[in-house]
Amino acid sequence: MAALMKSVTVRALKFSSAVNFKLNRCGGTPKLSVRSFSAIMSPPSKAIVYEQHGSPDSVTRVVNLPPVEVRENDVCVKMIAAPINPSDINRIEGVYPVRPPVPAVGGYEGVGEVYAVGSGVDGLSPGDWVIPSPPSSGTWQTYVVKEESVWHKIDKTCPMEYAATITVNPLTALRMLEDFVSLNSGDSVVQNGATSIVGQCVIQLARLRGISTINIIRDRAGSDQAKENLKALGADEVFSERQLNVKNVKSLLGNLPEPALGFNCVGGNAASLVLKFLREGGTMVTYGGMSKKPITVSTTSFIFKDLALRGFWLQNWLSVGKVKECREMIDYLLGLAREGKLTYETELVPFDEFHVALDKSLGKVGRQPKQVITF
Amino acid sequence: MAALMKSVTVRALKFSSAVNFKLNRCGGTPKLSVRSFSAIMSPPSKAIVYEQHGSPDSVTRVVNLPPVEVRENDVCVKMIAAPINPSDINRIEGVYPVRPPVPAVGGYEGVGEVYAVGSGVDGLSPGDWVIPSPPSSGTWQTYVVKEESVWHKIDKTCPMEYAATITVNPLTALRMLEDFVSLNSGDSVVQNGATSIVGQCVIQLARLRGISTINIIRDRAGSDQAKENLKALGADEVFSERQLNVKNVKSLLGNLPEPALGFNCVGGNAASLVLKFLREGGTMVTYGGMSKKPITVSTTSFIFKDLALRGFWLQNWLSVGKVKECREMIDYLLGLAREGKLTYETELVPFDEFHVALDKSLGKVGRQPKQVITF
Repeated sequence: MAALMKSVTVRALKFSSAVNFKLNRCGGTPKLSVRSFSAIMSPPSKAIVYEQHGSPDSVTRVVNLPPVEVRENDVCVKMIAAPINPSDINRIEGVYPVRPPVPAVGGYEGVGEVYAVGSGVDGLSPGDWVIPSPPSSGTWQTYVVKEESVWHKIDKTCPMEYAATITVNPLTALRMLEDFVSLNSGDSVVQNGATSIVGQCVIQLARLRGISTINIIRDRAGSDQAKENLKALGADEVFSERQLNVKNVKSLLGNLPEPALGFNCVGGNAASLVLKFLREGGTMVTYGGMSKKPITVSTTSFIFKDLALRGFWLQNWLSVGKVKECREMIDYLLGLAREGKLTYETELVPFDEFHVALDKSLGKVGRQPKQVITF
Repeated sequence: MAALMKSVTVRALKFSSAVNFKLNRCGGTPKLSVRSFSAIMSPPSKAIVYEQHGSPDSVTRVVNLPPVEVRENDVCVKMIAAPINPSDINRIEGVYPVRPPVPAVGGYEGVGEVYAVGSGVDGLSPGDWVIPSPPSSGTWQTYVVKEESVWHKIDKTCPMEYAATITVNPLTALRMLEDFVSLNSGDSVVQNGATSIVGQCVIQLARLRGISTINIIRDRAGSDQAKENLKALGADEVFSERQLNVKNVKSLLGNLPEPALGFNCVGGNAASLVLKFLREGGTMVTYGGMSKKPITVSTTSFIFKDLALRGFWLQNWLSVGKVKECREMIDYLLGLAREGKLTYETELVPFDEFHVALDKSLGKVGRQPKQVITF
C-alpha cells in the first residue's frame, strides 16, 4: 500500500483504508453495491503528464497512472473528449497565474461518462455524461476520479465535441456579453480575433440577442474565406486589419450603431482598432493577448472619449463561487449547440495522436480548428 | 444702436430694446431701481481675447470691449481674479474637445464681485462675491455679464486666490476620490504628477478621509524640496520616477496597503508606475497627459490582474446637470481652504502682466506656481 500511495501522488489523491462504496460498471458488468473494508479503485489511467514547466512539446509525455481509490463521495469518470486550449498550453509553460503544482496532468475541461461512483453518491450513475463544472485541472487522461460535487450531468444528446469544449470559450463569450455593458437589441459590439472560438460564439450569441457584431481579423492567406465563414455565422461586418488602415474607421460602419462594447484577445494594433470603433463612453474588455503585444492608448481616449478598459478571466469569475450560475449557463449553451444555434469547428484527434494535436494547437502547421482529444 | 450691436457680437449677447432693471453700484454710488425703456449697460471691459486658435502667446491680446446690456436676469460681475489652467491653454490652441467659438475671451473659472444686477435678480446683490458655477468660458476680463443662474455666491472671508481656483483642480481631485472606487479609512491611493494642484489636493483630501497617498514625481532639480513640500501637506510616500526603477515597486510600500485606486495625469512611464503599484482589481483614472505620451498596458494586466483603466473629465461630469451638487462641493472645498486644511501655492499677477503669467503657465521659465490673474 505504501508503494501504491507513493506512485499516485501525481494525482494528489489521498487514501483511506476503509470506505463505503458502490462499484458500478457500464457495458454489461453487473452493478455492485457492497459494504466492504477493501477500497474500490479506478482502472489504471493513461494521462498526458508534465513533470516540469516548459515548452509543451518537450515536457509532456504519456504516462500510465496506477489505479486510485474511488472514495465515498467520489465519481470515477471515463473521459470521452477534452480540448487543447491556449490556457492549457500556458499552464504547461508555467506562465499561467493559477496552475496546478507539477507533476500534473494537463487539460482543464472535457466531457466523460460516469464509470463508477462511491457509496455516498446519489446524483450520478454510471453511464451519465458529465463535465467538470466549474472546470478543473487534469482532464487529459482516460479516467478521472473527483468528488461528485465537481461533476455536472449533461444531456447525452448533445454533440460530444461541444460538451467537451462548452465551458472555457463559449462561457467566456457569454459572460463578456453580459457582465460589462448593458446591451439591448439593436446595439452593436466590436471584436478582434473574431475567428477564435470565443469570437465565433460572440457573433452567434450576440445575434440571438439582436446585437450586431463588427469583426476584425488578421490579413493572411484565406482571410476572404474566413470572412465568408464568419458572415455565415451571423457576423454583420468583417474587416481585415489592413482594411481598417483608414483615417476614420467609423465611416465603415454603414447603418450599424457605434459599439459601446469591444472585445480584445490580440493586443497591439488590433486592440487599437477596437478602441477606434468604440463610441464615447465605451468599454473594451481584454481576454487574450495572442500577438503578445501590449495595448497602447492615448490619455485623451480616457479623458475626452471616456473609454474604459477592463479585463475578463473566466477562472477569476468562476472562483467567486458561482457553481449554480455556471451550470445553468452551460446548460443554456449546450442547448444552443444541440439546436445548431451555436456552432464552431473542432477537429477530433485520437488520444494516441496527442502530440500531433498539440503541434496543431501550437500553431506549427498553420491555422487549424480547435483540437479535441478523444479517449 | 446698430453700431453698438455689431461691436458686442464678440461677447455673444443680444439686446432687447426695453427691459426692467435695477442698477446697483457698490462703493458709494446710490442704488437705483428705475423702470425705464433705456437699457442698463455694463462698464466697458478689458479682456484677453483670441480671434483664432493657435499658440496662446501669439493669438491672445488685450482688447477693450464696449459695454454690454445687463438684462433683466443678468448679473454684471467685476472680476477679482482668474487662473490660467492647462485647459485654458488647450482651448486657445483649439485642441480642447469643447471650446467656445472664436473670437472668444479666455479663462474658465475665477472669482468676482457683483457690480450690477438686472431688475429680475433677487438672489444676488452688489458687493457679493461670486464664482461661475459650473465654470464657464470668458473669465479673463474685467467685467463679465451672465445670467444670475450662472453665478454662485460664496463666503467673502475665503482667500481670494482659492475662490478663483477652487473649481477646476480641487473639484477634480474630490470627484476622482469619490466616483470610481469605494475607499475607506486605512486604504491608500497612488498618483503621478503629485506636485500639480490636483495632486496636492488629492493628498490633503485623502488625508482628511484617513486615506494614505503614494506619490510619484519627476526627477528634476528641486525634487527633494518638492518631496518635503508634499510630505508637509500629508503625503505618506513620495518617490521620484527614478527611485521606482526597481523590480518590484510594491516592496517600497512598507506598511501601506496596496492601493485600489490610482490617478494619472502624465502618461508614458509615469502611468506604468501607477499601474505597478495598484493591487489586483485596482482602477487607474487618467485625467491628464502632461508628457504627451500614451499609456501602454500589457494584456495580462487586464486579464490576470483585473485592472481597470478609466478617465475623468470635470467638464463632462459637470455637463450632466449637477449644478447643486457642484456648488455644495465648492462650498465644502472653500470651507477647507478657509480653515487652512486645503492649501496650494498660487502666484498673483496683475492683469497688465498677463503675458508674463502666460509665459510662466506655458512652462517657458521653469516650474512655477499656478498663475492667477488679478483684475
